[in-house]
Amino acid sequence: YGKNTIKFLRLHREGKKHFVKEVEVCTHLRLTSAQEYLDGNNSLVIPTDTIKNIVLVLAKKNGIPTLEQFAIDICKHFMTTFSQVVYVKTYVQEVPWQRLHENGVPHIHSFICVPDGIRFCEAEQCRNGPLLVFAGIKDLKLMKTTQSGFEGFYKNEHTTLPERNDRILCGELFCKWSYGECRNFDFDCIWYTNKIRECILEAFSGPPDCGEYSPSYQKTVNRIQMLVLSKVSQVQVIEVILNNIFYDVVDMKNLGLTNDKEVLVPVETPYGSCTCTLGRKKFLEA
Amino acid sequence: YGKNTIKFLRLHREGKKHFVKEVEVCTHLRLTSAQEYLDGNNSLVIPTDTIKNIVLVLAKKNGIPTLEQFAIDICKHFMTTFSQVVYVKTYVQEVPWQRLHENGVPHIHSFICVPDGIRFCEAEQCRNGPLLVFAGIKDLKLMKTTQSGFEGFYKNEHTTLPERNDRILCGELFCKWSYGECRNFDFDCIWYTNKIRECILEAFSGPPDCGEYSPSYQKTVNRIQMLVLSKVSQVQVIEVILNNIFYDVVDMKNLGLTNDKEVLVPVETPYGSCTCTLGRKKFLEA
Amino acid sequence: YGKNTIKFLRLHREGKKHFVKEVEVCTHLRLTSAQEYLDGNNSLVIPTDTIKNIVLVLAKKNGIPTLEQFAIDICKHFMTTFSQVVYVKTYVQEVPWQRLHENGVPHIHSFICVPDGIRFCEAEQCRNGPLLVFAGIKDLKLMKTTQSGFEGFYKNEHTTLPERNDRILCGELFCKWSYGECRNFDFDCIWYTNKIRECILEAFSGPPDCGEYSPSYQKTVNRIQMLVLSKVSQVQVIEVILNNIFYDVVDMKNLGLTNDKEVLVPVETPYGSCTCTLGRKKFLEA
Amino acid sequence: YGKNTIKFLRLHREGKKHFVKEVEVCTHLRLTSAQEYLDGNNSLVIPTDTIKNIVLVLAKKNGIPTLEQFAIDICKHFMTTFSQVVYVKTYVQEVPWQRLHENGVPHIHSFICVPDGIRFCEAEQCRNGPLLVFAGIKDLKLMKTTQSGFEGFYKNEHTTLPERNDRILCGELFCKWSYGECRNFDFDCIWYTNKIRECILEAFSGPPDCGEYSPSYQKTVNRIQMLVLSKVSQVQVIEVILNNIFYDVVDMKNLGLTNDKEVLVPVETPYGSCTCTLGRKKFLEA
Repeated sequence: YGKNTIKFLRLHREGKKHFVKEVEVCTHLRLTSAQEYLDGNNSLVIPTDTIKNIVLVLAKKNGIPTLEQFAIDICKHFMTTFSQVVYVKTYVQEVPWQRLHENGVPHIHSFICVPDGIRFCEAEQCRNGPLLVFAGIKDLKLMKTTQSGFEGFYKNEHTTLPERNDRILCGELFCKWSYGECRNFDFDCIWYTNKIRECILEAFSGPPDCGEYSPSYQKTVNRIQMLVLSKVSQVQVIEVILNNIFYDVVDMKNLGLTNDKEVLVPVETPYGSCTCTLGRKKFLEA
Repeated sequence: YGKNTIKFLRLHREGKKHFVKEVEVCTHLRLTSAQEYLDGNNSLVIPTDTIKNIVLVLAKKNGIPTLEQFAIDICKHFMTTFSQVVYVKTYVQEVPWQRLHENGVPHIHSFICVPDGIRFCEAEQCRNGPLLVFAGIKDLKLMKTTQSGFEGFYKNEHTTLPERNDRILCGELFCKWSYGECRNFDFDCIWYTNKIRECILEAFSGPPDCGEYSPSYQKTVNRIQMLVLSKVSQVQVIEVILNNIFYDVVDMKNLGLTNDKEVLVPVETPYGSCTCTLGRKKFLEA
Repeated sequence: YGKNTIKFLRLHREGKKHFVKEVEVCTHLRLTSAQEYLDGNNSLVIPTDTIKNIVLVLAKKNGIPTLEQFAIDICKHFMTTFSQVVYVKTYVQEVPWQRLHENGVPHIHSFICVPDGIRFCEAEQCRNGPLLVFAGIKDLKLMKTTQSGFEGFYKNEHTTLPERNDRILCGELFCKWSYGECRNFDFDCIWYTNKIRECILEAFSGPPDCGEYSPSYQKTVNRIQMLVLSKVSQVQVIEVILNNIFYDVVDMKNLGLTNDKEVLVPVETPYGSCTCTLGRKKFLEA
Repeated sequence: YGKNTIKFLRLHREGKKHFVKEVEVCTHLRLTSAQEYLDGNNSLVIPTDTIKNIVLVLAKKNGIPTLEQFAIDICKHFMTTFSQVVYVKTYVQEVPWQRLHENGVPHIHSFICVPDGIRFCEAEQCRNGPLLVFAGIKDLKLMKTTQSGFEGFYKNEHTTLPERNDRILCGELFCKWSYGECRNFDFDCIWYTNKIRECILEAFSGPPDCGEYSPSYQKTVNRIQMLVLSKVSQVQVIEVILNNIFYDVVDMKNLGLTNDKEVLVPVETPYGSCTCTLGRKKFLEA
């Protein structure tokens, strides 16, 4: 049980310059006993209202240095404060506020919401177990207008899809990676300096002057995973889900026109989806 | 990988009387090899477009006798037709069309959408494993305006929630149960004759003339599970998630009024949630 | 300016039997002067927080006898209390809670949300003008699986739609009617006794044993309007919007099957829409 | 009547460099006669399916030079082709695809969706009337963390809001302006060179080094309008709607902490809203 979508904004001021971190937190607990379910005995139950208070108090006291550190702080607080908690999991996602710029000059206290991919993280811990940390990006919508095809697939009497070597590849990406057991990482450094987001964009799109041919959504997923694992040593495992939006070339023959992939209609339902989890050998063996 | 939200309507006619079943299907597969991810070799990949065609063809050929039977048919088709498939999972949910009535007379071909709980099911199978069948109801929004409280809970310096013995209990229910390994069940009979939905409503609300006191959301979840397990022998395990919407009594003192729980404001975020899975001993031990 | 989506529940008790009315209110005002826009002078501005308080206080004091009466009460309050208000408009919609029944017995305090059409109303008044009252129903999703066609329409080189005399007619209805200037109507009586909702369903679907052929969405819209105007004398004008969802018969020829309108796929975008406003002659001339 | 949410992507290629314009179009018509409503006579009705075809054909033939020009083309086509059309209105909104950049280098065919404000336009024409063109931006979410207050407002017994001279101002903006009667404007030039979007951001936030105090949402709305009218001579009238999200400073006294506006909770419902339409004198008098 737990509390979902605890939304709040943490405002940090350095002189007249303001910094905002607006987040949405979900914290879930499992207790040693199930007596509240069986007997209606609430004596060990930490109300979800108290969970919310604790999240807000920690934000007030510690701030939100990084999303990951904040999720870790919450997990540690519940584990050390409440002996009846046997498992805690915290999810944090960020509202994508960006500082406004006027003619290149950053504004000291004005922000705009730019939802081009949502950053999130997760921390979880079982009593006596390691504290595991995950991070990710979701709702990242990308498109390539060429250098994508799908050929040589399995065919039978139910196959009506034609082979294609030049189609639009468009989809919404969900990427979640594990840092393994919590260590003293500088999570923002990994995010900003190692440029995980840029890795994903680069693996999706290929070189800017020519792109790179994708023979399937699956292969694109794999390229993203390989590039992140090769560039960011702290990442142990990476899961990628690509929900694709297919663009149908409108047949204009009976309208007397030849449509050379100029006018296309997005097919939003049904949509295909592919998921893959890829990890380092050492890590998966452990 | 797979295809999500394959939406279609299956129309069945008996003379002038029409029957509709509109569903949304998601079918996911895992293949023997991951060569399409690693090498871009698509030779074993069944396109998600073909998955869609197969679902529609099965609906045309077999109809949708019950949601569960349809999900089973799909799983069986993939397992028997494609040797490269090692796992298949199919989810089916129903659009809640109900036959219209005029002065009590059922209409032969007119329907109204009544979304007071969405019926769904799931079937899954690993190669050489049993075919498992699940069913459930979701998006069922219920409210009790009394006979609910929350007292005797754990308190510390972060507790601000007062004890209450008369509050509104309101929430959205998700219930999913397992029939275990697929047998020759008459699934609609279980649904309609055993009245699983009525069980859930009854356990939530108690006797119509007085209700039954709920000391917590957790206990209400448990009551639902116990009643379903006791009344429906085919159910092996039942999971219930209750997302609660809290109603806050508006403090009207500074408006010069005493509000005796007459005017309340729903608090939609954050919301509490509790989840519990309960099964029969024999089944869980197996 | 104003306050939108003021959500609250009004609980009314008669002995142990409870009655709930959960609503969402939007109230908008126009003031005599625009000095707050031009000069930043707020001295006449009634804060939207005060608007919210007034709505809650009126609900506490008067209850919600009918949605319409409550909207009228709010408009009258603002007009009589604040001389700087020159126009007020209030919209109220109801959360569709229905009393639960167990084996036909109504429950004294348990309810289920059944969103098969949302009831709403609107009241508006200019200073020195009449108080106008509107009511309506929205999000009402209906379907006929036959007795619908579309033929004899205008054709040119851009027409690809075939003529059809047996298609599915499905759509979401929005109906809003005017009672004209506010009089001492018993609004719930009009709703329940005159059965406006039943009129709409009947006009849409025709007799239960055979239906009635609809040559177009437009004609169905007109039938709804005509029936309501003929049956409910208090209604002066009625506007109907029908957003239609087209069901496409899946072509299964290249899958080796003949699909006799048995498997159909809903086309959610783009969707057609038709709107018509129809009133009584006397009223429109006035 | 008409067709809504006609979604398509127009791909334009210049050598290996690709340009995308994905739009959503709604086109509505009024006909000379209402015989399809009254008599079920469809002979003048242009099917909404034909409307869709025409929109796609025009996109194929003309491309989408600017959103506004495309909306104008559609209106003109219906007016000149169909004598039974007495009114036509077309709305076009753009999916916010932006070209991807890798280390500052623009990618030739890869794009990312960045929904930080949606650009739209509208064109409408009555037979024998002028063709009117509107443009706008919506879903633009902005925040100032200081330099905002609300004081000196009207108070009575229902007022509980305290005066504030330092609060967060956050809201979602909808701006729509009229270019008046259609002339040979270079619409993209107005958009990009006159920087309407930048005007709005600047008027909202004030100078980057200090901001500008806003005494109310209303005054901020007015500032946006004044700046756009002063900087962009082609704009005749501008309507602005600001739906505000209030941030509540969490009271932490009973948690033993002093919260100096560091932790705030967004209040999403109810929300305030203010709307104002401002035009040039000459234009409004005409």
